[in-house]
Amino acid sequence: METAGEMLARLRERRPMIHAITNVVTANDVANLLLACGARPIMASAPEESEEITALADGLVLNLGTPNLQTISAMFLSGKKANALGLPVVLDPVGVGASRLRRETAARLLREVRFSVIRGNISEIRALAQGSGCPGVDADTAQQVTEETVGEALELVGRFARHTGAVVAVSGALDLVSDGSQARVVRNGRAEMALVTGTGCQLSALIGAFASVHKGQMLDAVSAAVAAMGLAGELAWNRMTPGDGNATYRTGIIDAVFTMTPQVLEKGARVESR
Amino acid sequence: METAGEMLARLRERRPMIHAITNVVTANDVANLLLACGARPIMASAPEESEEITALADGLVLNLGTPNLQTISAMFLSGKKANALGLPVVLDPVGVGASRLRRETAARLLREVRFSVIRGNISEIRALAQGSGCPGVDADTAQQVTEETVGEALELVGRFARHTGAVVAVSGALDLVSDGSQARVVRNGRAEMALVTGTGCQLSALIGAFASVHKGQMLDAVSAAVAAMGLAGELAWNRMTPGDGNATYRTGIIDAVFTMTPQVLEKGARVESR
Amino acid sequence: METAGEMLARLRERRPMIHAITNVVTANDVANLLLACGARPIMASAPEESEEITALADGLVLNLGTPNLQTISAMFLSGKKANALGLPVVLDPVGVGASRLRRETAARLLREVRFSVIRGNISEIRALAQGSGCPGVDADTAQQVTEETVGEALELVGRFARHTGAVVAVSGALDLVSDGSQARVVRNGRAEMALVTGTGCQLSALIGAFASVHKGQMLDAVSAAVAAMGLAGELAWNRMTPGDGNATYRTGIIDAVFTMTPQVLEKGARVESR
Repeated sequence: METAGEMLARLRERRPMIHAITNVVTANDVANLLLACGARPIMASAPEESEEITALADGLVLNLGTPNLQTISAMFLSGKKANALGLPVVLDPVGVGASRLRRETAARLLREVRFSVIRGNISEIRALAQGSGCPGVDADTAQQVTEETVGEALELVGRFARHTGAVVAVSGALDLVSDGSQARVVRNGRAEMALVTGTGCQLSALIGAFASVHKGQMLDAVSAAVAAMGLAGELAWNRMTPGDGNATYRTGIIDAVFTMTPQVLEKGARVESR
Repeated sequence: METAGEMLARLRERRPMIHAITNVVTANDVANLLLACGARPIMASAPEESEEITALADGLVLNLGTPNLQTISAMFLSGKKANALGLPVVLDPVGVGASRLRRETAARLLREVRFSVIRGNISEIRALAQGSGCPGVDADTAQQVTEETVGEALELVGRFARHTGAVVAVSGALDLVSDGSQARVVRNGRAEMALVTGTGCQLSALIGAFASVHKGQMLDAVSAAVAAMGLAGELAWNRMTPGDGNATYRTGIIDAVFTMTPQVLEKGARVESR
Repeated sequence: METAGEMLARLRERRPMIHAITNVVTANDVANLLLACGARPIMASAPEESEEITALADGLVLNLGTPNLQTISAMFLSGKKANALGLPVVLDPVGVGASRLRRETAARLLREVRFSVIRGNISEIRALAQGSGCPGVDADTAQQVTEETVGEALELVGRFARHTGAVVAVSGALDLVSDGSQARVVRNGRAEMALVTGTGCQLSALIGAFASVHKGQMLDAVSAAVAAMGLAGELAWNRMTPGDGNATYRTGIIDAVFTMTPQVLEKGARVESR
């Protein structure tokens, strides 16, 4: 069983290639984040080539932000190819509740592609769970996960993990990770990360990188990625000087992943087993 | 009647959601700028979902940079939906004179969508006015607005504002804002802002954010946004150190919007009523 | 015969407009890099307008990253238009070996468009040369160009330059530039530049800018651009402080192009004639 720091060290050694079919708003940051952690990004969203690109990669990340019919088609082709090849596939259902296109695409993806990991905020995960017919999901679950509501949220997340067979990660004030039988609560990160566009997309890509080199211990790989991203947010915040804002913070978060040593992650990760 | 500072304070309080159908080159900066000012960005350019996304938003920004048939189709659907819902709609006719596709799209948008605000540089606004059959627009109007030509430019801008029913904002050495009966001359900003790609796109998004929470005083809301963006350019320039260039400036401008207090805007805004 | 510094000075004076049909991941950095060097970027990827946009420009850059059928169609239209108008055209065959779509598109581009410059890493250039039926290209050429393999690599590059009639530039530990009869070895740059996404795309755009104002001395214009980009990578690295990572480096490289004087380039360029 590897620790978070050991996992980061192995990721840096292996340099996995991650195929990201991601949104146009945050694609550049996702690519630089992947480079920062030691992975090699490849972006390709045309259905005419997406399967071939996936076949070259060690992991696949599907991101529903700014979807269109072409990229959606690429997601299905790449998702199935990754399944056939045994590559881990991460789903980031960005804004899944916002349109029928996203809801239906996500629901169909859940039916036709086997995901290793699904990551979103609590609203996205709840919308996804409801849309997938996951039993016992209702709209009353508190929006933000707090120390008070963590138990209830973990139940939802665990149920959805069992329903999909994926490790499910929920980002928020507390981060939750569950594989349906075990769970982790991660207490890294800062609220200000939400003021930088794409930190969620970056985390999903980071999860893809960790997952691709630690397939046998998916729950811990995802938790390590979640802790690493949150810790990067903390470290970058500490480097902010007066006058700095969310654009400097954006740069700093990627820098903090780039400079993060296994020792720093080991020491800074606050992961609780539940 | 609220001041610029009070408007910024209200924007931060309300956190409007702004739907931006924007170009792929500057989408990330537009999203971070919206977050910096206190708004919440949502980007969606597929015609299959754009109306629904607009329906969730408090304002809509249409940006003609890097148009294609799909995003253009989304612009019409979202523009009409925003009109039906009474949401403010901002048009940024990026490079409208550069191709028939842009000219015809802009002309048709002006016929089929009611815009609250139209913002561009003087060439774009003139090209747009001519293409829309606005009376009295000729190609002789000086290209750059200076203290000498401001009167002539204001006439063009005022005529176009009356023709379209929109508040028209012209960016340049001097910034002009007119609703057809009243006008403002804004003397904030720096010429170097033009060396950062997308500062115009960012301003249009900022205008959308201000407009969405101050619908009753559109002329002043637009002027406040113009002053805020220009002031951010000044403040960020002052933080530049030797060796810094346009990439640091890019980061600094968004940071300056993020850290701008209502008091700073109040004191720094140089808006003249004409 | 102008020196590298004189070429940069002339570029800054002329402010050429460069039409880039580039990938969505790095489009923003490409635009800011073009502004940093003194050029004016224009991005347009829809086949409905790409020819007209090219006709307004002084040079054209085609980048195969994230291709789709629409942007590919725009590349052919713009490439032919640029040929008809005598504008320099740069090809950046990003990841050309990764998919049939990229291979076939590149091969067809080489048949139907006359390129002034082709720039890639050694794997891309070899894949391209093989796909184009360039005689004598085999898969055994060493992957990375080193002082030991530079002779062999220059042979491949020279043969491909003669085959295509283009100046061919290969990026790597050493950079090679050849027009088929003469060659240059450029010893600027740092390995860490590969940890910033899009530095290759930026170099191709910079080459387009240099080429557009120095059509009569293409070999030296390309070498000057290669040296300038590498030097920017060196200068930016020297400004890095502890805790900085690839995101700060990204900003710094563009800044270094922005602040680079002709004198600095003159003194820092390490270009050897072979």
